[in-house]
This record gives sequence, structure tokens and C-alpha cells, in this order.
Amino acid sequence: MQMNPNKDTQLCMSLSGRPGNFGLRFHNHLYEQLGLNFYYKAFSSQDLPGAVRGIRALGIRGCGVSMPFKEDCIALVDELDASAQAIASINTIVNTNGHLKAYNTDYIAVAQLLAAHAVPRTCSFALRGSGGMAKAVASALRDGGYDNGVIVARNEVAGRALASSLGYRWQAELGALRPQMLVNVTPIGMSGGPEAQQLAFEAEAIAAADTVFDVVAIPAETPLILQARAQGKRVITGLEVIAIQALEQFVLYTGVRPSQEQFQKAVAYARA
Amino acid sequence: MQMNPNKDTQLCMSLSGRPGNFGLRFHNHLYEQLGLNFYYKAFSSQDLPGAVRGIRALGIRGCGVSMPFKEDCIALVDELDASAQAIASINTIVNTNGHLKAYNTDYIAVAQLLAAHAVPRTCSFALRGSGGMAKAVASALRDGGYDNGVIVARNEVAGRALASSLGYRWQAELGALRPQMLVNVTPIGMSGGPEAQQLAFEAEAIAAADTVFDVVAIPAETPLILQARAQGKRVITGLEVIAIQALEQFVLYTGVRPSQEQFQKAVAYARA
Repeated sequence: MQMNPNKDTQLCMSLSGRPGNFGLRFHNHLYEQLGLNFYYKAFSSQDLPGAVRGIRALGIRGCGVSMPFKEDCIALVDELDASAQAIASINTIVNTNGHLKAYNTDYIAVAQLLAAHAVPRTCSFALRGSGGMAKAVASALRDGGYDNGVIVARNEVAGRALASSLGYRWQAELGALRPQMLVNVTPIGMSGGPEAQQLAFEAEAIAAADTVFDVVAIPAETPLILQARAQGKRVITGLEVIAIQALEQFVLYTGVRPSQEQFQKAVAYARA
Repeated sequence: MQMNPNKDTQLCMSLSGRPGNFGLRFHNHLYEQLGLNFYYKAFSSQDLPGAVRGIRALGIRGCGVSMPFKEDCIALVDELDASAQAIASINTIVNTNGHLKAYNTDYIAVAQLLAAHAVPRTCSFALRGSGGMAKAVASALRDGGYDNGVIVARNEVAGRALASSLGYRWQAELGALRPQMLVNVTPIGMSGGPEAQQLAFEAEAIAAADTVFDVVAIPAETPLILQARAQGKRVITGLEVIAIQALEQFVLYTGVRPSQEQFQKAVAYARA
């Protein structure tokens, strides 16, 4: 955070059902590193329209939006960036003199990571999940030219809807499929959840894949990621997703892009 | 401010037409001194109802209210403390689980200062001014048992209304009156104003008085205060008022009363 707050200090914030520490530590650490007169505060709310009205009325510069507000926020903003438009799900609001523009930096982060890890566009993939984040990840895949995909979801209605909206197939289970990339966008492997110790994909499918992408961030080293690493697969973790999406929020709020070193330091600080 | 903000950090704020630095420096310094997990942010707004709705929706713990919002806020809160009720002017909102209770810590500060400086209740006084702050000061005088007073105000409508509501007389000018206490609640002597170099009362009246009380805080040493000090009068300054009213806000927000030394340190820091 900025060490000497004054009347010109700008506030950024997050809005989520269960606030965590990662975002606020990440942003405040970078404000301090870069000498920016900003402060970041995590909020929850029982009154989403009231919270967004407060953002406007108080001139709060930016707001990260998490579960369960990502869809309901759409009706409350003035403009959707392309990253949010297609998915109908936002995770970032930028307030410029009372005009609220919403983005989806999860989408942006996934697109960046597929490119950074040089995942071939021609690879076949299976994406497990059908919620809001699955929509963001699947959309980034589709817009990145990854055409050969299947959505794996036990929820048939949501799974079919997501798959058909993007031109993918749907399956309730992976079955005998052995895609080149496996993408987990469910809570399987998440710390504290009922499936914390489970693999999001069968061991045989992992063994057959080239690339494993797990969106679960806590822990970054899920059972799926650990197994894939042990077999020398190309691995993309949920920590990379939350770090890059936070970085892109930071750039949108402040107009400043930190160096790679500053970014990595902030990630390390935010995780601690 | 608290040095390591986390998801449990509580926000307090101010709402004013022209935010200053005193309050946020005072509160943040005390949070840090006392190790309290709070952060204080100054805001302005063009949408007062929206700002107050934001306070509720975001669970902001406390809000200092300054010009021009002190009266309009009343309709937006749930309960008025006795300090705000009689004056119909508030400067503090405390949010307890969505219930907003409003106070007037200016009133509380003035009452404390009259007692601390041992101003005799029997003394005659003239109070110059007829605005919102004049109402708070005059009410504290009346409730403190200072019965022998005159309101001096060029604005006849406002002056008469204030005087009659509290059982005081009204005069447009001080004239030949030589009260024992002179109280200035106008911008005369305020830095940057058109009357910065002027005395709020005639030299002859100052010479005849025992006590001079100037609510102007910037500078604390107004021409009126300087002249009174030079003549060895009992002096109460606007700095004392803003410091004590801020202290009482701090106690209401945090439930913690700083020591006199911690309070004085915070005042010195906030002025710097």
C-alpha cells in the first residue's frame, strides 16, 4: 500500500462472497513497490446494486468482482469490454469519472497463458466444468483457435449449453477419450473442498496428454498438477491464472504495467 | 494506517465537498500507533444518497460528514444520537451491522472544551455566525448552562432563527456590547479566505473579554487568537475543536480511547 495516504489516494476494491487475501496483498504490494497513491480493500456485500452505486458515488477507481457477483454485475455497469461481452461474465470494473466499464481478465489471462506456454492450436482438448469460470476458459480457447474440444460436465444442461454456444461437443464423462490437453475448471483438487485429494482426470488420460491446465489456485500444486509434473507434461496452474488476471486488473486501474520482476515479487508476497 | 492490510481490515471514511488531510492523517496515525486493523479514506461525492447506500452495502464502519452534507445526511440514517438530534446537523455516522447512527462530535468537542478550559457558566458571551457549525457551538453553550448570550449575525433570518431556537438574543453587529467571552464561528481569519487577515471581533471587544474561542482551525492561530493570546486571555482554538471531534469519532468507530499522549502525537502528525 501507499505508505502515506492523503486526500488524493485512490481506492480500488474487490467484491466477493468470501473475500480472500491474494488480491489485496498483490495490489497493495505493487502500489508500494511502484510508489502509486492507491489503496486496495476487500469487501463483501448483501446488496450488490448498492455496492455498485457506492462505487459510482464514492469514485472508487476499480473493483474486482468474484463469485457470486460475476453475472449479476453486468446489468449494473455502463459498458462491457470484448473480454466480458461474449462470456456474459465479468470480474473487473473500471470507473472512469463515473462511467463503469467491465472486463473479464480471467479470459485475458487464459488467452495469454495459452500463448506463453506455446500450446499448439491444433491440439485436442477436454475441459471439465460448466460454471462461470469454465465459460471464460472455454471462450478463450475457442477465440484462440482451439477448435477440437469437448466439454466434460456432469451437469448436462449447463454442459450442453456451454458446448453448443462455442461449437464444442459435450460429454458427461471423459470415457475413452484421450485428448492432448486436459483442462480442469471444477473445484476438484481444491484445498478444503470434499474432493481435495482427487484427480480431476483419470490417471490414464493424464498419461496420454501433452498438456495439463488446472484452474484451481489453492493449492497451485493440485493432485492433477503434481501428477502431470511428475510425468514431465507441459503444465499451466491456477496460480498463473489468478496472478495474471490480477496483473491485468492492476494495469487497467493504474495505467502502469509492472516489470516482470515486480510482478513476480508481488505474486510471491501475495501468496505468503 | 495498519501496515499489513488483510481481508478483515475495516474501512472508515470521510465525505466532504473538499476533502482535506487532517482527519485521514489523524485516524490512520492512531490505527498504526494502536495496532488496529483499520484504514481511513477521504471521499467526496456528487451523490449523497448513493454514497450512504454504499456505506451500508460495503459495511464501511464509520463516516465523518463535512460541508455540505451535514444536514442532508439526516434523512439517510437510521438513528440520531442526542448530540445530533437537537442541532439537526450531523458530522459522524457509525455503521453497526447496517444500522446507521449519527452523531455530532463538534457539539461534543465544544462541550468538552468549555469544561476543560473552565469557562464559567455565568459568563456573558457573543457568538458570531449563523451556519451549521454555529448551531452546534451555540447548542453546546446552551446545554452547558451558558444562558447569557447573544448571536451576532449579519444574516438576520438565520441569526434570529438560531437565537430564538436556543433562547438567545440576536444582533446584526456587536455594537457597544462587551461580553466576557467572544466566540467566532464564521470564516473570518481563515487561511485562503477573503477575510484571512481580519479580526472576527473589534479590538475593543477583545480587550474587554476574558475568553476568546475561535472555531477557525486553519490556521489555529488566527488574528483573533493571536491578539487574545498577546493580551493573556483564556483562549480556545479551532484546532482543539477539530482534534477532539476527530478523537471522539475515533472512539465511536474503534471502541478504543487513545491515551492523552497518543492523541497529542496524532494531532501533531495530522497537522504536519
